[in-house]
Amino acid sequence: MKSLFTLFGILIFTSVFSQTIEEGEAKNIKAFYNIALSEQQAYKWLDQLCNDIGPRPAGSENADKAAKWAKAELEKIGLENVWLQEVDVPHWVRGKETATLKELINEHDLAITALGGSVGTPAEGIIANVVEVTSFDDLEKIGEKNIKGKIVFFNIPMDPTNFSTGFSYGMAGKQRWAGAAEASKYGAVAVLTRSLTLKRDNYPHTGSMSYGDAKVKIPAAALSIEAAELLHDKLQTNTGLTVNLVLTCKSLERTTGYNVIGDITGSEKPDEIVLVGGHLDSWDLGTGAQDDGAGSVQSMQVMSLFKQTGYTPKRTHRVVLFMNEEFGLDGAKTYAEYSKKENINHVIALESDGGSGTPRGFSFDTNMETVEAIREFKSLLAPYGLHDYAKGGSGADIGQLKSEGTILIGYRPDNQRYFDYHHAYTDRFDIINARELELGAAGMTALLYLLDKYDMSVVKK
Amino acid sequence: MKSLFTLFGILIFTSVFSQTIEEGEAKNIKAFYNIALSEQQAYKWLDQLCNDIGPRPAGSENADKAAKWAKAELEKIGLENVWLQEVDVPHWVRGKETATLKELINEHDLAITALGGSVGTPAEGIIANVVEVTSFDDLEKIGEKNIKGKIVFFNIPMDPTNFSTGFSYGMAGKQRWAGAAEASKYGAVAVLTRSLTLKRDNYPHTGSMSYGDAKVKIPAAALSIEAAELLHDKLQTNTGLTVNLVLTCKSLERTTGYNVIGDITGSEKPDEIVLVGGHLDSWDLGTGAQDDGAGSVQSMQVMSLFKQTGYTPKRTHRVVLFMNEEFGLDGAKTYAEYSKKENINHVIALESDGGSGTPRGFSFDTNMETVEAIREFKSLLAPYGLHDYAKGGSGADIGQLKSEGTILIGYRPDNQRYFDYHHAYTDRFDIINARELELGAAGMTALLYLLDKYDMSVVKK
Repeated sequence: MKSLFTLFGILIFTSVFSQTIEEGEAKNIKAFYNIALSEQQAYKWLDQLCNDIGPRPAGSENADKAAKWAKAELEKIGLENVWLQEVDVPHWVRGKETATLKELINEHDLAITALGGSVGTPAEGIIANVVEVTSFDDLEKIGEKNIKGKIVFFNIPMDPTNFSTGFSYGMAGKQRWAGAAEASKYGAVAVLTRSLTLKRDNYPHTGSMSYGDAKVKIPAAALSIEAAELLHDKLQTNTGLTVNLVLTCKSLERTTGYNVIGDITGSEKPDEIVLVGGHLDSWDLGTGAQDDGAGSVQSMQVMSLFKQTGYTPKRTHRVVLFMNEEFGLDGAKTYAEYSKKENINHVIALESDGGSGTPRGFSFDTNMETVEAIREFKSLLAPYGLHDYAKGGSGADIGQLKSEGTILIGYRPDNQRYFDYHHAYTDRFDIINARELELGAAGMTALLYLLDKYDMSVVKK
Repeated sequence: MKSLFTLFGILIFTSVFSQTIEEGEAKNIKAFYNIALSEQQAYKWLDQLCNDIGPRPAGSENADKAAKWAKAELEKIGLENVWLQEVDVPHWVRGKETATLKELINEHDLAITALGGSVGTPAEGIIANVVEVTSFDDLEKIGEKNIKGKIVFFNIPMDPTNFSTGFSYGMAGKQRWAGAAEASKYGAVAVLTRSLTLKRDNYPHTGSMSYGDAKVKIPAAALSIEAAELLHDKLQTNTGLTVNLVLTCKSLERTTGYNVIGDITGSEKPDEIVLVGGHLDSWDLGTGAQDDGAGSVQSMQVMSLFKQTGYTPKRTHRVVLFMNEEFGLDGAKTYAEYSKKENINHVIALESDGGSGTPRGFSFDTNMETVEAIREFKSLLAPYGLHDYAKGGSGADIGQLKSEGTILIGYRPDNQRYFDYHHAYTDRFDIINARELELGAAGMTALLYLLDKYDMSVVKK
């Protein structure tokens, strides 16, 4: 292994990482994995979070229960300064949601779910013809004349041919977050969107949407893939069919939620903060096992593994479980404001919000020199499946700290199955593999351990 | 990328692999992935194999059905010389299998399954005390005096702390394949073994066993992890408890099964054979979705992707679906004998028998120079998750060709979940993720394509 001693104005490793050190570190790192894989504390925590508490949308009673539970667990493992940070959050609630496709004689129930933030329909629902579009350009082509008074059906599949499912999600995502806002400008009375998933089943997938600058707010719901395919097929032979859409979801008064924060105080540089976190809130359909119960318990496990192995970091390591990543990033924004006000020096932040899959690596939102320096650790981590060390995004919550010049890191598990369950009823504890979850936690711990021990000093630009 | 031109007596690449070529090849390789991920033919085949045909143990009617089905499918995709090769196979059948733990007052049903090849018990079963051992050394320590007439309970867990679950499987495997043979030498009347899995549930896992040189054949069954833990717990307070074990499994007459073979004839070197394969047989408890339905349909998909993209390989590419990997490797041995007799020149053989997990890479059973030469292709394959290119084992079936000097390659998907389902009822189609399966097939295709196109010539030692 090459020396880790690098000097390029941003990063200074003050220690030389020799062959002998590498062999010793292989043993130290194995200790994290041994504990995680044999005790499976993250998996046990996730069981409690999903099965004892359940879904945790922002503003809900469960979200508060989860915050109190996490605080108690962080105290149990011996963290310092464990506290709940108040966060002003929206409180949107789901209600009845049905969509009935009416043909001349037959009716079909379409599996749907309201998109997060959608307005409801009148009590009797909306009955209207459906016009299908496969792109946003179609709205302009079809025109207001043919859209006005109708339900716009956005049927834009995720591209199955990309290796990165996240990339395909991004490409198809606009129908969910902006479909209603755009269709409303052409006089649509509601929108139905194809669920953002690559799995063909009958579970609809929710997620946040925004009305942007639209003057009229129209109801929006996602169709399961099977429902979207059925509706598409029916429209081929009968363009005059109608759908009766009923949604009783609504936004209540904003309320108070909580970030959960706890520290291990650094022994040498306590004012330099290394943050690790996930988000404690989830969508309401499942129990948020992978999104982002997994990232929450992995972050807790990082702290626990430091405590259990007796490693006292030089810098203060802080876990932050953010509230309401899903629908406004309020927890992350509140924490970032607090950081700015208190002039907190976050040198590194690591987020796990990519699910519970088997480890693949990390993504680094920092300069290339830093990425290359961190890659020197690869030979110690690759034996645990951590091969990817790309420059790229990190996570939505820690992204709020970007302006501070913090090295932002995203944990990247395998994501082939991620969108199968994402924001759906099926995101439940039974889809979690204990080993894959724990490997992620141990890998995150190992990376932070190496960065701390080998004296990464960040000289901010 | 460095030039692929290497010359070291074993391998000669006659083409230089330049930057321009690399860019072109990235597109060619993407074509394999595009078809596999969008059409999902391997996944559709696996659905038929698991759900229309079902479990396929050697000697069973289903194994023959599967062979005929595979032959027909290979003909449909346009392979040449599709034929069934007769294989002499054993025919062991499961029957009734129960184990009742008797305490003074209570009885507990223990979830068990006979190990493949076990003799049965008398009709009324065996009732005996249980002696627990946690290693083979324990047999000697405890001694014949304390074992004679008893049921030996091998309770040797797989080590959860290794990243490689296959390694832990190997370490704990002796209890299954040799437990009965060894315990019988100390006068045991039966053995119960802890299932070889890392998942705690109530499904027992079967697998082959052998009586080796034991003079007395005693019945052998695997306990589910929950049953093993219960039995262990009960033995802590009551060493006098008994188990009533009933097994009506038995070996029938040997019979005829079939390897399925089909070719794409090479355009330049038709006498050099590149083999790709998996095994068509499965254990009887589940439907062999991952073991090895996955490897079978992936191998079929490799051939299909060559046909669909219109790539005509220089060497003859042959798919072989082997019969009875699980209980004697008869298909592989028959094929290897045929190869020797006909003087067939297998230059490369690639096996997929590591499950249906997300891709990790390949393992190469050949010399290090060859491995290093093949690693030159890594930059083209790593974007699809194929990072591991280790020297190591390949597969049990193609291993029979080792003496020929063939380059043996094992496809290595992620194996964290593999033993959760291995040889158990739960190895069924619903555990398969279509994308992970197809990524494997496309990756196997891409590797063989590159090896063929860039003129790997094998000069046998």
